[in-house]
Amino acid sequence: MTCIASIRPEVAAFTPYVPGLGADEVRNRFGLSQVIKLASNENPLGTSPLVQQVLRSRADTAFRYPAPGNPELTRAIAGHHGLNPARIVPGNGSDEIIDLLVRMLAVPGRHEALTFSPCFGIYSTQTALCGVTLRQTPLNPDFSFPWDSLLAMVNEQTTLVFVTTPDNPSGFCPPVGDLVRLAEALPPACLLVVDEAYMDFCDDEAAHSLLPRLDEFPNIAILRTFSKSRGLAGLRLGYGILPEIVAEYMRRVRLPFSVNALAEAAGVAALRDDVFYRETLRVVREGREQLAQGLRALGCTVYPSMANFLMFGLPASCPATMANVYTDLLARGVITRPLTSYNLPHLLRVSVGLPEENTFFLQVLGEVLAA
Amino acid sequence: MTCIASIRPEVAAFTPYVPGLGADEVRNRFGLSQVIKLASNENPLGTSPLVQQVLRSRADTAFRYPAPGNPELTRAIAGHHGLNPARIVPGNGSDEIIDLLVRMLAVPGRHEALTFSPCFGIYSTQTALCGVTLRQTPLNPDFSFPWDSLLAMVNEQTTLVFVTTPDNPSGFCPPVGDLVRLAEALPPACLLVVDEAYMDFCDDEAAHSLLPRLDEFPNIAILRTFSKSRGLAGLRLGYGILPEIVAEYMRRVRLPFSVNALAEAAGVAALRDDVFYRETLRVVREGREQLAQGLRALGCTVYPSMANFLMFGLPASCPATMANVYTDLLARGVITRPLTSYNLPHLLRVSVGLPEENTFFLQVLGEVLAA
Repeated sequence: MTCIASIRPEVAAFTPYVPGLGADEVRNRFGLSQVIKLASNENPLGTSPLVQQVLRSRADTAFRYPAPGNPELTRAIAGHHGLNPARIVPGNGSDEIIDLLVRMLAVPGRHEALTFSPCFGIYSTQTALCGVTLRQTPLNPDFSFPWDSLLAMVNEQTTLVFVTTPDNPSGFCPPVGDLVRLAEALPPACLLVVDEAYMDFCDDEAAHSLLPRLDEFPNIAILRTFSKSRGLAGLRLGYGILPEIVAEYMRRVRLPFSVNALAEAAGVAALRDDVFYRETLRVVREGREQLAQGLRALGCTVYPSMANFLMFGLPASCPATMANVYTDLLARGVITRPLTSYNLPHLLRVSVGLPEENTFFLQVLGEVLAA
Repeated sequence: MTCIASIRPEVAAFTPYVPGLGADEVRNRFGLSQVIKLASNENPLGTSPLVQQVLRSRADTAFRYPAPGNPELTRAIAGHHGLNPARIVPGNGSDEIIDLLVRMLAVPGRHEALTFSPCFGIYSTQTALCGVTLRQTPLNPDFSFPWDSLLAMVNEQTTLVFVTTPDNPSGFCPPVGDLVRLAEALPPACLLVVDEAYMDFCDDEAAHSLLPRLDEFPNIAILRTFSKSRGLAGLRLGYGILPEIVAEYMRRVRLPFSVNALAEAAGVAALRDDVFYRETLRVVREGREQLAQGLRALGCTVYPSMANFLMFGLPASCPATMANVYTDLLARGVITRPLTSYNLPHLLRVSVGLPEENTFFLQVLGEVLAA
């Protein structure tokens, strides 16, 4: 007498999401006064003052629907990148853009998507929900990208190839030449989707991003987000820079009001706050170096990262498991990101925080490793 | 050399969305100082003061991701209705819940959805995007529901039946007994989805809503929204009250952060602001009566409505078309909703505004009809 009988098999195969702990939960559970969260790659400086001011001044407009298609934000993003607005589609986080690309470009049972393994979880979940096969080739042992293996998997069924650069959770960021060669080698009916969520944290964006070379290739989509360097994770705002024809159809099929009105206003303000943005990049780049040096000084293996996080392994001599280290850090007030969902239980990811947060994390990790 | 070749046929069939005009556009286009928007069924009182206060105090938290699954909001909604939180799933507007229900419960080519015609546009677009057939039976000429025709269309392929009550754009609201009989007659593998977005504007909710009788039927989903009576249209917040098993799987397949953090905080606050809510219901019910009387006094045909809008036709003696009346209203600073997209070009929908807005609308309409 329940409708379990009609739940699609693709859906019935989903396992429950296990969320990480929030700062308040950790504070209460362990009776701590100070807890720092370095788990979700959020902006260490918090929310831009200009964004806060706009949010406060717009609080009384929450009763109005957003303008369908978010034209003001679309123009602001296009202007920021010097691109035609016809190529830009904002989404309720980049997650929505990824979901729509799968729904638009892959016929279940006929088309397939490709990516590396491990990959951003949303590539797996949204292809699975759509009933579209996602084929994956494992990353190299040093977390660099096995381009030849990826290309070898491309066939006539391939309509989507997902690449994240800088990659999550490793922070690996290949030179743009590698992406150019991939784009050149892919067949025309295949869209290369490059998720550049963390690209602006890169030391040399021009040497790593495909964005300046967009016009050389008809079939590239680039994803960017306001969640990280722009500090708007809670408002859910990402965007696709798409071939015009894909953008045109995406505007037709997306839910008309998926991006909320305060996110739209905040996004426009965030693009204007250059001071906050530049300070964010400076703090993240310096903090990344501080963390990398500190982790190496503790004997940890640190993977090179161009993002606002670092992935690391324990010293060879350390008898503890990473699961224990994660829990011990938690009990001392530091929330990091375990990588069991990436099948990397021996590694841990830590987001770059403020200098004092990085120092606290390194000190606490030192205590945990010495215990 | 473009990827048009791989765009799914379901997607290629979508026509572009044509958004209505915003107040600023109308002000500029017609050089008006005063423009009132009675087009989108927004809250005439605006945004609750308590919600505004919470939004302002939370502006500095926009950089943090929301808690996955929005547990605080889920508990608040469940507490408000006296229901088990396991039945509640918040969405980025009810639109997201509708989309997920189709994706979860209908296998393309094997299952079908049913509804009346005309219907809420999202039922059509999301089934089309999923490649699921939506079969429709026309409403009765007076916009009441032809239950027998709907039931006659149910077969073994039917896994979803969508009913909106009060209905949009007519405002028709059948007695709950009709819905009970439908729920009893549907086969167990079919989910009855009742969109009650406008139910709290009804004069006698207990006599019209299925919500109090939820436990009598295993396969009912009820949709509610914060966009109308709670004044949060811009923040995008709706929810499904679902069979537990459907809610459980929906939590698994939904994007983990689809509801933004400020919407969650605002939703919790909105449920606490009883004063604003009760005043909204009073203003809407009185304004609906004011508008209905005024429209009838002008000779218009007014359809009975339990929602925060009225649908009406022109006096039989009026030589103008409704398209002209709509444009003339616009030129005089009143934005209403033409119903061409519902295939009802001879009718117009007007949202209930503040008493002075309703008066202004009636005065301007009188001038237009007399011109």
